[in-house]
Amino acid sequence: MEETVISLVGGGVTAPAGFAAGGVAAGIKRTGLDLAVLHADRPCAAAGVFTRNRVKAAPVLLDMERLPGGSGTARTVVMNSGNANACNGPRGMADARSCAREAGRLLGVPEEQVLVASTGVIGMPLPLDNLLRGLGGACAQLSREGGALAARAIMTTDTRPKERAAAFSAGGRLVTVGGMAKGSGMIHPDMATMLCFLTTDARVEAGDLRLLLSAAVEDTFNMITVDGDTSTNDLVLCLAAGEGPPLSKSGDLDFLDVALRLVCRELARDCAADGEGAGHLITVEAAGAASLGDARSCARRVAASSLVKTAVTGADANWGRVLCAAGYSGAVFDPDKAHVWLGDLLVAAGGAALAFDEDLARRILRRPEVTIRVDLGAGPYSATAWGCDLTEEYVRINASYRS
Amino acid sequence: MEETVISLVGGGVTAPAGFAAGGVAAGIKRTGLDLAVLHADRPCAAAGVFTRNRVKAAPVLLDMERLPGGSGTARTVVMNSGNANACNGPRGMADARSCAREAGRLLGVPEEQVLVASTGVIGMPLPLDNLLRGLGGACAQLSREGGALAARAIMTTDTRPKERAAAFSAGGRLVTVGGMAKGSGMIHPDMATMLCFLTTDARVEAGDLRLLLSAAVEDTFNMITVDGDTSTNDLVLCLAAGEGPPLSKSGDLDFLDVALRLVCRELARDCAADGEGAGHLITVEAAGAASLGDARSCARRVAASSLVKTAVTGADANWGRVLCAAGYSGAVFDPDKAHVWLGDLLVAAGGAALAFDEDLARRILRRPEVTIRVDLGAGPYSATAWGCDLTEEYVRINASYRS
Repeated sequence: MEETVISLVGGGVTAPAGFAAGGVAAGIKRTGLDLAVLHADRPCAAAGVFTRNRVKAAPVLLDMERLPGGSGTARTVVMNSGNANACNGPRGMADARSCAREAGRLLGVPEEQVLVASTGVIGMPLPLDNLLRGLGGACAQLSREGGALAARAIMTTDTRPKERAAAFSAGGRLVTVGGMAKGSGMIHPDMATMLCFLTTDARVEAGDLRLLLSAAVEDTFNMITVDGDTSTNDLVLCLAAGEGPPLSKSGDLDFLDVALRLVCRELARDCAADGEGAGHLITVEAAGAASLGDARSCARRVAASSLVKTAVTGADANWGRVLCAAGYSGAVFDPDKAHVWLGDLLVAAGGAALAFDEDLARRILRRPEVTIRVDLGAGPYSATAWGCDLTEEYVRINASYRS
Repeated sequence: MEETVISLVGGGVTAPAGFAAGGVAAGIKRTGLDLAVLHADRPCAAAGVFTRNRVKAAPVLLDMERLPGGSGTARTVVMNSGNANACNGPRGMADARSCAREAGRLLGVPEEQVLVASTGVIGMPLPLDNLLRGLGGACAQLSREGGALAARAIMTTDTRPKERAAAFSAGGRLVTVGGMAKGSGMIHPDMATMLCFLTTDARVEAGDLRLLLSAAVEDTFNMITVDGDTSTNDLVLCLAAGEGPPLSKSGDLDFLDVALRLVCRELARDCAADGEGAGHLITVEAAGAASLGDARSCARRVAASSLVKTAVTGADANWGRVLCAAGYSGAVFDPDKAHVWLGDLLVAAGGAALAFDEDLARRILRRPEVTIRVDLGAGPYSATAWGCDLTEEYVRINASYRS
């Protein structure tokens, strides 16, 4: 029997068969692409994971209504950047419904099968006329190549589009999982996540898809942080367009699980690496924890620490800040048994400093990806979180976000 | 019967009768004052509140041993800046004991009555020789005027010393509460707090003092945040030097409570206002909460939000970030019933934007103290938190802290 190989492939949301997308400049942002449409050639099993922020944007509320319990059927997703459509009162919900209705009309899809997502400034009404006008253009240009345009159209302060895809062979058929995401700011672990749209040509039950998606999000998007702020608009949607018998629970569904996790992990890392003002991707591996919860909490708190982040900014091997953050993470451990590594360099053992090569440490901290590892010496559990450094550029971006 | 007036007075830890202090440059920092001694002319009732960080510095551990359950007797406190004496293994504890022993020898005090506190870089052994040599100078110069030197000697990245005192009349006798604090970085609500030293000439039982201190800290130092990092070294110590019958539980002790809270509140605000790189003190009032816990959590999360902080940095009336932070604070509320004010200017009502005067909002956000008020419309509870804006200077300070 052949071994199943799951590998990253090119493309994004339109990498799987059955999906088309497009992106246009609708005049929601001052300049640039700001409206995207993702469309499947048939109704799809759909799953969603949504922000846990009590203040939820109108598009999040609408999608939650259309995917009760996090799963259902959908065919089309309308996405805009430049405006979050959050904190707009009843008008926000009416506007979200109008978008879905118009996209449904243009594409001949029942409006209940249209999902929506927005990202941008909170508390400003959507420029609905621009948006509805733009929808005509976006729906007219839908194509497989349009995936790249859609990935650009959902960007806010992102500096680059984020597209990933993975494929494997199941029963002689190629199964592909694709995705795109936007990240950059208002990103923090205790969440559903930023915006991420996933697709697959696998045939999978909506309920199964929801379970796979939730588990993948827990280990990937819920393990990144940029600034400790959980957004009002975070969501991850996944559409599965496959036909025929669904993937079997004990066989090919496991491969889909791995492929989905792989795409989510890469997109999550992309989001952390492209955090607002970021110069470095910071990967924090917490090992030796007494529970999985402790490991996750420790990895996330170290990745979220402003002081750890600025130490990386300055290439300063200030490992005490790593132990300090582990100490307030809630993880149970004896500080005198904890070790800290920067890259492969052990800098503290048994909770105290080692004499280490400061020059080597500085070179490690100047790499584009900096790995910080902390072993709590308290048990067998481990987890990984991703973040980025905190720079003066982050402050500049966010001191003038609305202007 | 006369009304008891509690008012702020000049001075700090030596404002109450019976205390002397001094500060010297012992060569722990590269330059400047870095070693302080506070000394009472008799054994005092003492209370302490300590960091909840699992990684506790040696001086914190030693003080916890000497004040079991948070209260006991003490006469002298040795404090140094420039080195946290945290994560130094068994040597850290031995060094802390040596400091206390030497101060006790110099001042003729049993070493068990000497408390210690350190602040500065984590994971570097104390320069013990310098410290012990410096102790001689500090103990030789103890005086009432030395309180100002001590307040300077505990500073790290603080830009100004923080001294406060309050006084009231009890049974024809003047009772004074004094305090000094250092703040600036690694400061976040879920804690005991930064370093703060309080004194009073009141006669109060150590257990009562501990209760008063814990309650005051909960509403003051535990309600400030600079960067979301809870330090390894936080502590608040209070020494009461009064003689004769203790203050009565239903009478004068209440005034001491108010005076202690007043001094703590002012010092906490001083710490927030002088946060690393800060240009503004941000006061967040959360009202209309369903519980006190909700009110506190909401006020603290808004004050801690990087995005709220940078909006103040840029004088950008981006109130959506305030509601967003309230939304992930854990407080229970209906976003459609929430209101937000900047200063006295109502900018959002019923969870949605109002047309407000942007120029006025900008002027409000440019004040040295910016007050943000959020009413959750969910109940009768309120709480206040204090923070500061996040600036490029914060990043510069922390990218090169060890160098």
